[in-house]
Amino acid sequence: MHFDHAGIATDDATALADLFTDLFGLEVAHEEEFDGMRVVFLDCGNGYFELLEPLEDGTIARYLESNGPGIHHLALATDDVDAALERARELGIDLVDEEGRPGAWGHTVAFLHPKSTGGILLEFVEH
Amino acid sequence: MHFDHAGIATDDATALADLFTDLFGLEVAHEEEFDGMRVVFLDCGNGYFELLEPLEDGTIARYLESNGPGIHHLALATDDVDAALERARELGIDLVDEEGRPGAWGHTVAFLHPKSTGGILLEFVEH
Repeated sequence: MHFDHAGIATDDATALADLFTDLFGLEVAHEEEFDGMRVVFLDCGNGYFELLEPLEDGTIARYLESNGPGIHHLALATDDVDAALERARELGIDLVDEEGRPGAWGHTVAFLHPKSTGGILLEFVEH
Repeated sequence: MHFDHAGIATDDATALADLFTDLFGLEVAHEEEFDGMRVVFLDCGNGYFELLEPLEDGTIARYLESNGPGIHHLALATDDVDAALERARELGIDLVDEEGRPGAWGHTVAFLHPKSTGGILLEFVEH
């Protein structure tokens, strides 16, 4: 597996994308409304920053209320989310998603529970 | 610039490295004691996860006390940290480090102040 993206919770994905473009020269690779969020993928050349701005109540809105803006999760790319989940199950990892589900940008995704992964929210993503 | 690493604050870098190796097949690329921390770089193929375990009081120890374990910062690779800092200054970004300083693994690093960057702690790193 390799690094796919860092998910970032923000109140203003457009402003943060503009800042990252100016500061780092990153380009917007994809943008959509998905699951009650504005989602902007910035291309880092070897992966993405996924900016997540809530448009209604939900996980990211609640994260922002509790924590303020911040780095929400890290995602690893895999060719087979369900095989990756099976491996995680064998290791005794608690899963948020028992199987792959549709994510932003048409990807298949699944999250692992941070209580099993040292407090870090981790995602498998299959393009 | 491109993605270099995600910095992760943890109470136990060895255990987290073992877990990430088992779960994702990541290998330890480098390990050292630096600036009062155990620092473990896991190779993601296209970047690194930098696990930061405090061995004494300091920034990461205080982060863990306040927040618990979590994703602490994101680092972008640049060929010239000082030029990147100059660009940040032109954009009105507050800097934690006014010039590049020695970081782990012999790299030159500089942090930007999160109050200027949407609440996200960002680092420039020059290998």
